[in-house]
Amino acid sequence: MNEFQSVALEREGATADLVVEGGRVYCSNRREFLERDVAVVGDRIAALLGDADSVTGPETTVVSATDRVVLPGLIDAHTHGDIQLIFDRAVPDLLATGTTAVVTESSGLGLLFGSRGVDTFLERTADCPITTYLTLLPQAFIDTFGPATGTAAELEALSALLDRERVVGIGEIDWIHVVGRDAPIERLYERARDAGVPIVGHGAGCRGDSLRAFATVVDNDHEAISADGVRERAENGVHVVGRCGSIRDDLDALIDAYPDLDPRSVSLSTDGVWPGDLLEGFGMAEIVRRLIEAGIRPADAIDAASRNTAAHFGLADRGVVAPGAVADLLVVEDLETMAVETVLSEGDRVVVDGDPVVEARTDPYPNYVYDTVSVDLERERFTAPLEAAPNGTVRAMAVDRGLVTTETTADAGIDAGGDASDQRLGPDPEHDVLTATLLDRDPATEDRGFTGFLTGYGLESGAVATTGTWETTGLVTVAADTDDAVVAAGRVASMGGGFVVARDGEVVADLAMPIAATAAELSPETFATKFGALEDALRESGVGIERPLLTLQTLTFPGVPALKLTASGYANVLGRSIVGLELANPPK
Amino acid sequence: MNEFQSVALEREGATADLVVEGGRVYCSNRREFLERDVAVVGDRIAALLGDADSVTGPETTVVSATDRVVLPGLIDAHTHGDIQLIFDRAVPDLLATGTTAVVTESSGLGLLFGSRGVDTFLERTADCPITTYLTLLPQAFIDTFGPATGTAAELEALSALLDRERVVGIGEIDWIHVVGRDAPIERLYERARDAGVPIVGHGAGCRGDSLRAFATVVDNDHEAISADGVRERAENGVHVVGRCGSIRDDLDALIDAYPDLDPRSVSLSTDGVWPGDLLEGFGMAEIVRRLIEAGIRPADAIDAASRNTAAHFGLADRGVVAPGAVADLLVVEDLETMAVETVLSEGDRVVVDGDPVVEARTDPYPNYVYDTVSVDLERERFTAPLEAAPNGTVRAMAVDRGLVTTETTADAGIDAGGDASDQRLGPDPEHDVLTATLLDRDPATEDRGFTGFLTGYGLESGAVATTGTWETTGLVTVAADTDDAVVAAGRVASMGGGFVVARDGEVVADLAMPIAATAAELSPETFATKFGALEDALRESGVGIERPLLTLQTLTFPGVPALKLTASGYANVLGRSIVGLELANPPK
Repeated sequence: MNEFQSVALEREGATADLVVEGGRVYCSNRREFLERDVAVVGDRIAALLGDADSVTGPETTVVSATDRVVLPGLIDAHTHGDIQLIFDRAVPDLLATGTTAVVTESSGLGLLFGSRGVDTFLERTADCPITTYLTLLPQAFIDTFGPATGTAAELEALSALLDRERVVGIGEIDWIHVVGRDAPIERLYERARDAGVPIVGHGAGCRGDSLRAFATVVDNDHEAISADGVRERAENGVHVVGRCGSIRDDLDALIDAYPDLDPRSVSLSTDGVWPGDLLEGFGMAEIVRRLIEAGIRPADAIDAASRNTAAHFGLADRGVVAPGAVADLLVVEDLETMAVETVLSEGDRVVVDGDPVVEARTDPYPNYVYDTVSVDLERERFTAPLEAAPNGTVRAMAVDRGLVTTETTADAGIDAGGDASDQRLGPDPEHDVLTATLLDRDPATEDRGFTGFLTGYGLESGAVATTGTWETTGLVTVAADTDDAVVAAGRVASMGGGFVVARDGEVVADLAMPIAATAAELSPETFATKFGALEDALRESGVGIERPLLTLQTLTFPGVPALKLTASGYANVLGRSIVGLELANPPK
Repeated sequence: MNEFQSVALEREGATADLVVEGGRVYCSNRREFLERDVAVVGDRIAALLGDADSVTGPETTVVSATDRVVLPGLIDAHTHGDIQLIFDRAVPDLLATGTTAVVTESSGLGLLFGSRGVDTFLERTADCPITTYLTLLPQAFIDTFGPATGTAAELEALSALLDRERVVGIGEIDWIHVVGRDAPIERLYERARDAGVPIVGHGAGCRGDSLRAFATVVDNDHEAISADGVRERAENGVHVVGRCGSIRDDLDALIDAYPDLDPRSVSLSTDGVWPGDLLEGFGMAEIVRRLIEAGIRPADAIDAASRNTAAHFGLADRGVVAPGAVADLLVVEDLETMAVETVLSEGDRVVVDGDPVVEARTDPYPNYVYDTVSVDLERERFTAPLEAAPNGTVRAMAVDRGLVTTETTADAGIDAGGDASDQRLGPDPEHDVLTATLLDRDPATEDRGFTGFLTGYGLESGAVATTGTWETTGLVTVAADTDDAVVAAGRVASMGGGFVVARDGEVVADLAMPIAATAAELSPETFATKFGALEDALRESGVGIERPLLTLQTLTFPGVPALKLTASGYANVLGRSIVGLELANPPK
């Protein structure tokens, strides 16, 4: 007889370990709120009882839910636990926003360290009170703008990880890499299909025939930013992952399309909550609240943040309030506020009266993840050869809406460097022309680097550098001053990764991200303060765009078009080609 | 690039293998009917196109769906493919009822042959145009009314089958075996939990605290026969499997409860369609039609017969009309009639203009499944010892509503046999007292047997025998005449299993079921004719109940109470004990 039956049968002497009493309980298979007591034994729900007094003994923990609503713990269907702030540090605050499980990408540790990094991330999160499911990053098997770096051995190592219980899919891939073309990632996808796990899509801007083709490759997508985009994904059988987080808020598109969707085909995600937003209390509960406020049926909104995601990713026994399910539970004040009072994680109270009662894990990661920035920072690398612009005009990226950078032209400045006989192209901040440099920091290819140009960023002096580059193991600088680029990059390297703003030869703000050079190990408060200081420093230097560090990070990211940085030149994203500084038809 | 993209992209020269054109297509993730052409490549849906002319070449098969509705192939969530008529023979007719996949129990071949029988069933159905998913029978690890027969080796062999792609769960278990008691089946359940497959419940009559406890053990149940029963299952997180088939029709209960359910938590099943009903066109399409007629949203009814079941049992890529999904498709005239015109199975047309265009598979099964009835048919075994009824009155079963037999008392007749000095208890048909004998036919235990008594069956002369006993490898006779019991049982044995009615020393009707002695290998037409002749013969002998053979078959089935036959005595089902003929307080 299993350990739940005696409680379910209310046998004489049988006691629950914990009881949530007096609440209106969301019964997932009924989609109704019923007055029930929830009896928990170990890490599972043993029974929903009319009155749990019968199974409440002296050792039973009693959680009052009188006048409250009891929900399944919320599941973030798509986030990034190993970039910006490492997941461990955010866990207590994330729990307080109602999140008890996440499906996270692994492109921070994974991009540099491959399967070994994923394995470390898995080990590190094994006992995390937020159950951490991982998707395997595809980048090693992408060859759109350069040769794929993944070896046959790495393919086997990643595939082997598919057998791990908490590895639940292949992480997001930009449609540009797979639609209408052969890509080595297909070999990993075959393994995923065999393992029966979903493939995560990143279909920003994908529509029409391209979306139809993308739908034959991926199983879900979180990049619909219009109601039509949501509908089109659903029609093509793609599980819709609504997104609202620190990168974007696309809930209105989802809300508009909701009546035209099968509600079960929707999940909710943050795509990452950065410390500033986290400290303001933003999280999954707030997303659910927003949907309910917009008129979405509470049951639909709750399901989209719980059982739908569990079903799509095959998260066993999660996402429902039912006997036998894992006791991940929330007590919220009501559905209007979604104010989280109590959170149970696998039967343990981790949030009480709205405050987390668990500590962040702060012990160090394995040595190998630190001190990974060893690129050559010779000054010349932050400039471009004079001959690239016979008449001074070069191809350049222009900051557009959001994270988009479009193709433009710019008149580069002349950088005399130390030696006037070796003139090169450099920034001309007076005319809003900055250098944008990407230095590869993958040990296998770290001699690669490219300096291009950027307009519309607004930096009037100094430079900014980061290793927090998306989809690329790089060190990026954007500079109004080449000497400051060297200073900023140098500090980033010496910190083992992070963000730095330099001006007049000095570092004026920094934030270390020493884990794989992509994630900080700070408290959310410290991170937010330092991140704010970096943004302030950029604003002081004339940068007017809203999220200047995000623009920097996504200069390497082909997931949003149109002209991006690679270590070998610009990526013409939609043309799927590498292009240089030289213009095909230079102005006379 | 996968094989679908060039069609999805409508590239020059790309052609689909098959196109379903002009229909209103049920797009599962939209829950809407959209005017689309469905392009099929190989066994999969490649794309939903506005107009598939662009991918229609000279080799493309074109299926017209003009003015028609295109649906996913229907999935029967619970059936029995290896009892009554062996599945192979019914496949063409089942396809014509819209069924393209089934989840079947394996208690015909499995009960006698264990994992070997299941393996044979799997092999036999490997290329079946109805995709056949199996659940593993639990009976070898049940010990409620006798020792469990399953060895440790058999546990391992069954567990190993959980790795097979088409093994999707553990088959139905009567709640009486597991609620509130330890049972060796838990060892197999542990393996199932590890494999992440559902456990099928059989909760007939289970409610209240027992249902709560049962819900901690099983994942789905098809035995709700009232709307309250449906709701109670859903509340406790049990996936509701609505049933309508040759055994029972419980759709009204489901229909009443539908508004109180999460529609995704419902599947539909037949629990077996016998040839007579099959030939009348009864099947999954008719069940869906019934729900729609009763006002259930068409999307809900269709989902319950397709994607819900696929999701619950983890049937990969089944149950939806979407790119990448297996091309199991129906073209129906409209949702009002659900008249099936065309059926595609994995991209092949298997029903055209309503008629199957595939043949039943008729080659023999492996030798070992035949000729399995070798029990001792000595006349005395069909009678009871005189001393069991000191004053002539014995414990007996009384035929009640449906398949229920309740406990009663009866005055047994005296059977003189061949020798008056050895008088024993026998039938007294003039007073509606019949003998009911169960002889074990499991080679390991076939010396066991028990003769009890039955009232309310109505047989006035002769005897009826069958090996089609539920949940027991037995040979059952019900007799008004002991000599005829021997004749009927003898013919059953010589046929290797089946049904026989005997009268006045002669066989008057028979139906061979030579596969594991539980399934016939006949055409559905021949089966139905012979089955009808058996029923007619019983009616001629005075039997007035509606389905007299089913009553016979379920005399051994503790899944419906209250007093049943075992080879060691009566099973007092709710008391979970074996009781004999002797009354505790015999009448004076």
